[in-house]
Amino acid sequence: MTSLRPTRADRFSFGLWTVGWQARDPFGDGTRPAIDPVETVHRLAELGAYGVTFHDDDLIPFGSDEAARQHHVKRFRAALEETGLVVPMATTNLFFHPVFKDGALTSNDRSIRRYALRKVMRNLDLAAEFGASTYVFWGGREGSEVDAAKDVRSALDRYREGLDTLAQYVIDRGYGLRFALEPKPNEPRGDILLPTIGHALAFISTLEHSEMVGLNPEVGHEQMSNLNFVHGISQALWQGKLFHIDLNGQHGPKFDQDLVFGHGDLISAFGLVDLLEHGGPGGGPAYDGPRHFDYKPLRTEDLDDVWRSAAANMRTYLLLKERAAAFRADPEVLEALVAARVPELAVPTLADGETYADLLADRSAFEDFDADAAAVEGCHFGRVDQLAIEHLMGAR
Amino acid sequence: MTSLRPTRADRFSFGLWTVGWQARDPFGDGTRPAIDPVETVHRLAELGAYGVTFHDDDLIPFGSDEAARQHHVKRFRAALEETGLVVPMATTNLFFHPVFKDGALTSNDRSIRRYALRKVMRNLDLAAEFGASTYVFWGGREGSEVDAAKDVRSALDRYREGLDTLAQYVIDRGYGLRFALEPKPNEPRGDILLPTIGHALAFISTLEHSEMVGLNPEVGHEQMSNLNFVHGISQALWQGKLFHIDLNGQHGPKFDQDLVFGHGDLISAFGLVDLLEHGGPGGGPAYDGPRHFDYKPLRTEDLDDVWRSAAANMRTYLLLKERAAAFRADPEVLEALVAARVPELAVPTLADGETYADLLADRSAFEDFDADAAAVEGCHFGRVDQLAIEHLMGAR
Amino acid sequence: MTSLRPTRADRFSFGLWTVGWQARDPFGDGTRPAIDPVETVHRLAELGAYGVTFHDDDLIPFGSDEAARQHHVKRFRAALEETGLVVPMATTNLFFHPVFKDGALTSNDRSIRRYALRKVMRNLDLAAEFGASTYVFWGGREGSEVDAAKDVRSALDRYREGLDTLAQYVIDRGYGLRFALEPKPNEPRGDILLPTIGHALAFISTLEHSEMVGLNPEVGHEQMSNLNFVHGISQALWQGKLFHIDLNGQHGPKFDQDLVFGHGDLISAFGLVDLLEHGGPGGGPAYDGPRHFDYKPLRTEDLDDVWRSAAANMRTYLLLKERAAAFRADPEVLEALVAARVPELAVPTLADGETYADLLADRSAFEDFDADAAAVEGCHFGRVDQLAIEHLMGAR
Amino acid sequence: MTSLRPTRADRFSFGLWTVGWQARDPFGDGTRPAIDPVETVHRLAELGAYGVTFHDDDLIPFGSDEAARQHHVKRFRAALEETGLVVPMATTNLFFHPVFKDGALTSNDRSIRRYALRKVMRNLDLAAEFGASTYVFWGGREGSEVDAAKDVRSALDRYREGLDTLAQYVIDRGYGLRFALEPKPNEPRGDILLPTIGHALAFISTLEHSEMVGLNPEVGHEQMSNLNFVHGISQALWQGKLFHIDLNGQHGPKFDQDLVFGHGDLISAFGLVDLLEHGGPGGGPAYDGPRHFDYKPLRTEDLDDVWRSAAANMRTYLLLKERAAAFRADPEVLEALVAARVPELAVPTLADGETYADLLADRSAFEDFDADAAAVEGCHFGRVDQLAIEHLMGAR
Repeated sequence: MTSLRPTRADRFSFGLWTVGWQARDPFGDGTRPAIDPVETVHRLAELGAYGVTFHDDDLIPFGSDEAARQHHVKRFRAALEETGLVVPMATTNLFFHPVFKDGALTSNDRSIRRYALRKVMRNLDLAAEFGASTYVFWGGREGSEVDAAKDVRSALDRYREGLDTLAQYVIDRGYGLRFALEPKPNEPRGDILLPTIGHALAFISTLEHSEMVGLNPEVGHEQMSNLNFVHGISQALWQGKLFHIDLNGQHGPKFDQDLVFGHGDLISAFGLVDLLEHGGPGGGPAYDGPRHFDYKPLRTEDLDDVWRSAAANMRTYLLLKERAAAFRADPEVLEALVAARVPELAVPTLADGETYADLLADRSAFEDFDADAAAVEGCHFGRVDQLAIEHLMGAR
Repeated sequence: MTSLRPTRADRFSFGLWTVGWQARDPFGDGTRPAIDPVETVHRLAELGAYGVTFHDDDLIPFGSDEAARQHHVKRFRAALEETGLVVPMATTNLFFHPVFKDGALTSNDRSIRRYALRKVMRNLDLAAEFGASTYVFWGGREGSEVDAAKDVRSALDRYREGLDTLAQYVIDRGYGLRFALEPKPNEPRGDILLPTIGHALAFISTLEHSEMVGLNPEVGHEQMSNLNFVHGISQALWQGKLFHIDLNGQHGPKFDQDLVFGHGDLISAFGLVDLLEHGGPGGGPAYDGPRHFDYKPLRTEDLDDVWRSAAANMRTYLLLKERAAAFRADPEVLEALVAARVPELAVPTLADGETYADLLADRSAFEDFDADAAAVEGCHFGRVDQLAIEHLMGAR
Repeated sequence: MTSLRPTRADRFSFGLWTVGWQARDPFGDGTRPAIDPVETVHRLAELGAYGVTFHDDDLIPFGSDEAARQHHVKRFRAALEETGLVVPMATTNLFFHPVFKDGALTSNDRSIRRYALRKVMRNLDLAAEFGASTYVFWGGREGSEVDAAKDVRSALDRYREGLDTLAQYVIDRGYGLRFALEPKPNEPRGDILLPTIGHALAFISTLEHSEMVGLNPEVGHEQMSNLNFVHGISQALWQGKLFHIDLNGQHGPKFDQDLVFGHGDLISAFGLVDLLEHGGPGGGPAYDGPRHFDYKPLRTEDLDDVWRSAAANMRTYLLLKERAAAFRADPEVLEALVAARVPELAVPTLADGETYADLLADRSAFEDFDADAAAVEGCHFGRVDQLAIEHLMGAR
Repeated sequence: MTSLRPTRADRFSFGLWTVGWQARDPFGDGTRPAIDPVETVHRLAELGAYGVTFHDDDLIPFGSDEAARQHHVKRFRAALEETGLVVPMATTNLFFHPVFKDGALTSNDRSIRRYALRKVMRNLDLAAEFGASTYVFWGGREGSEVDAAKDVRSALDRYREGLDTLAQYVIDRGYGLRFALEPKPNEPRGDILLPTIGHALAFISTLEHSEMVGLNPEVGHEQMSNLNFVHGISQALWQGKLFHIDLNGQHGPKFDQDLVFGHGDLISAFGLVDLLEHGGPGGGPAYDGPRHFDYKPLRTEDLDDVWRSAAANMRTYLLLKERAAAFRADPEVLEALVAARVPELAVPTLADGETYADLLADRSAFEDFDADAAAVEGCHFGRVDQLAIEHLMGAR
């Protein structure tokens, strides 16, 4: 049985902005005080997390002078050293300040694009200094509300130019950072560029240093388009591009809820943990990076609730991991998967060395194939679903 | 003024299955008789279309023997010759017969995958015979309802294997066909693989002959995920992958409606036609392939209504084209676009020859950049939207 | 511990059309043979169901003559007698035949409206004969795709006229049937009238015999609009109108999936069972009618899978019931609910006998109320959510 | 031809909070300065509006003392007198202050419910003082994220108690105000009570003074659930409950966009204006209240753009009104509507004096009715849709 107490080996991490969200929303003022990042580091460490992540402006308020900047960095570093927490990832805030209202790397205003590049470069230095291995780009303002006012093809040109430039910078400096793009379909813009895992993967294939650019998909962002997150992560893994992941919860197409992981579509969360933990060759982990929670404690909650919610993310993950392990170990499940021919999909359609010419010559494949007879056999998928749900419910 | 009478130069095409849909739906029986493909060819020609497209089974009923097959082909060819209609595209029905209930190229059952490959190859021969230049793959059954019963990474392996095999076949035979994948998020499967333009583009980048594989995006399919179709087509064009297009209408995330083009999100349809017709360099067409209508006449309609609806698709397209031309020619629009800095996005962020080191040295870009001041300026996008809508409404 | 073997006391029922669905969908042919209703009765009885329900045409094929009709009825009755199964509900098929393509009670064609009324009346006789207590109206074709072609206010007039007429018929005949309207937002029509629980409740308030008309809400139908089903059922109960319920599963806004109960949004299913079973005064059942499964076995499945899926519906319900019982009995849950002030909402806002004048005179309510101080207190809702999920997962 | 210059006879009104929105969103800071309500009154008057509306806190900042309150009221009144603008509607801000984080009339905390009632009563006095005839209740915080932490039936008890109390207050004071509830499905709460027009109508039927309570539906709110707004307004009119209306634009299920009216689903906006302006008996207006714009100027815009966007709302409405008038006057439209049997739906299904017994005796209605023959006739709805769209586009 998996322990339900998080340890550093579980690689759980949180953004400063998650527990630190003051709960200002489009219709209401903040309900909670700010939390000192140093306190966050200590609390997360106590709860069993191994990492903390940040936007530049989470750590160093926008507009700080150099002395203030050094002060913030120093205090944060001390907290990391005291607790042993690491910084696996960092990112840039290119969305809060009004200057980014039409985007950063794809703003129609060239001077803002240049400013954005510089803001990223400055924080890349800091990310490297803290030993981060992943640098996330969430282009929340890269988008539009008015089709005719944004030339999307030029925007993609500029997006590519920006990322190519920044990748070169990272390479030349020897920072060892990989980039991870985070797709989202909308909010705060009416439509955001690279709205899904797919669009971002496609875009990456066009980059100069595409090998160092992957994804940071977020559960809720894909579910805002009612897309299957397990399928999306599967494609990202298949393309070797799952560099980082944002775990949270969402109830379908509506505003971005950022619920605690599992507090949305629980069956999908089970499938996701099963994939991450047991989807690799031989049943080992398919993903070995941080399990990063990008959630918001409910606006109704107080500070004690905040820390309780942080713990709930990790506990739910560990529960799902335990359930998935039992599912994979259950002989009846193995039998049901075979009955559903799930392993047969790993067998190539053409035999080893077989060509299309051979296939054309194989009368059993077509001329003598009885489609009606083949159609009669059931796939027995429902049984697999029920077994999964019973394992999820701890009922087997 | 654009003529509102379709001509062959407009390159309008229809699938046999569109006007020919007998209006059987999940809760009801068909309401219309079958239409002889020969009649369809004649009627479409009279209405001003230039092309007709088909699934193998639209033309030659599933299970026909060779004699019947030749008979159907011959009659169809004669109709094409009489009317001058062309066959710009063909595709395979890999979804209707129960044998494909778990997919074709990605069925868990290997024998079905082999059968599907052969069914495609047979129809590739016919497509080439009819001079088609595009061959569409809509993988409507390639998907799942139960996450644990479909290994998506293996499925993508098989999907790739299938397409690589078929591409090699087409190359070796010298058919000159290009493949166009058609994404759809769901229906008939609970979740379909390659659910959006983005996912399909990403997948294509992994194919052996990726240069001959592009997209056939459908308006309604992207809108079923509430994604911006104009943005999606822009990315497809940007990646050089808009090989074909399916025009129709949809009212957001619900079952696949396949309405007449424009009879859904009209503003988006305007943006789309504007992009296709005036989005190229110098303002010319950004896409020169067929304008293919993949719609279904409402189930309430009779045969006369069917042909009326076919005409409505073309007329709406031409009206939108006319409105878009006026929009692009309006000096106030040009002025508004400049005020919104739309053309400025085409200017590279770095100057010609400028490196990131130069950018770092440019104090005006960051140290001396006044973000607060830059944030004050309005983008004036709403004015562009209003101008577009007034042109769409013929009010300017 | 609740037994996970269904018994008649659990009041589980199924429609003939559910297990009997031949799996024809908009893009594919049926994959399963028809099942004789007599066999269905026997199989359901063996599985532990207590009831079976039907549309007229499920039992007696459309167009049967009187002799055939009597034959079908007789065989079915015999099966009921042999098994002890009851018919708690019946309904009319007003959607499959092409004559209903524009609706039944609200068809623009008056002769079709008259025909529909007669078809209902005939089946009301049969429903009464079989001892049903509920008669469902799902107006799947009452709707439109074209706003200007359906005068919705006239349609609602006709809908009301039809239901008033049929209610009078039932009253005069002394059938003891209550009507239950089943809302759905779309599919098969582009938009269906009375699209949600709310719209149907509102409409009912205008009926002549509104006291005998309530609702038959379906899980998936509300979730197709991404509405909270537990909230909807709560309002229906609050208005005394939960006459019947259709249990199944759905993955958000897309085509109507009719999955096995629980195989969609599992957390919502838990909340629903908790409400139905423990939401009454004193914690008893809030609803004592049939637990009716209106689902479709996946199209990929064979007949054995069909019966397995029927059992899965009941087993999942019983598992959820067991989990909900444990949740309600857990002292920590009770404590958490009190901390979240959940019971305080049952306390009237004005004290017994207090008037608004008294409230105006109460300075503590406003003048001396410290809103900022009151805002500081946390609601502790996240803790309740986590406890619910852990109970759902059998982890406490 | 309708004039496209707004006049007071058009009854256009705007909320102070619309043009005054400073464009703070969940991911970004405000981009525009506050606007003095006095300036808003003057600018709206110049643009041709007839009315202005407000939340208490729009006019008088939360926490103002009595002197400040009087000062704000006096200045505002003077502006109204100078310009002739009226205040047709007012409402209460029960969502911004953190004290309302779990709701106002349905907060789990009774003292907050009492405070909320008092806050409303105070502003009812002011609304009456300004001569408003409608008082809107948007319960944006009345809802939940956690099913088990909100007893919805108790919440509806408290909601009813609150509205009954406030209605009595208004009656006793002789204020002549009617209440209008504004439904919304979600945002800022995960799920909001009374999520749609239907749910709110149903709830109203349970109120003590239900005759004085109606609806204030908002275009975007219904479209966030992908519901047909024209259908919803039709039902509200049919039930005599369209007391007020909020016009804006939305692109389907996503965050609340509050776009300019028409800048979302333009075809639906056409249908709506057609209904409001020409849907009454004899073709006159079906609704004679204010045409109230509840929109937000895009966050990218500056103050000049703000006023331009206010004008755009009115201009789009007037353009649609003109197009709808032409549509209704077109003989071909009339002919098409008759062919589609639209007027026939206004004919009762039973003849004058006919009973169900007469219907049962009418063999032509059933026994001799040829359903197959009746099913053949087409409904010709597509033609109506195309005519509507061509009129909308000014193409006829």
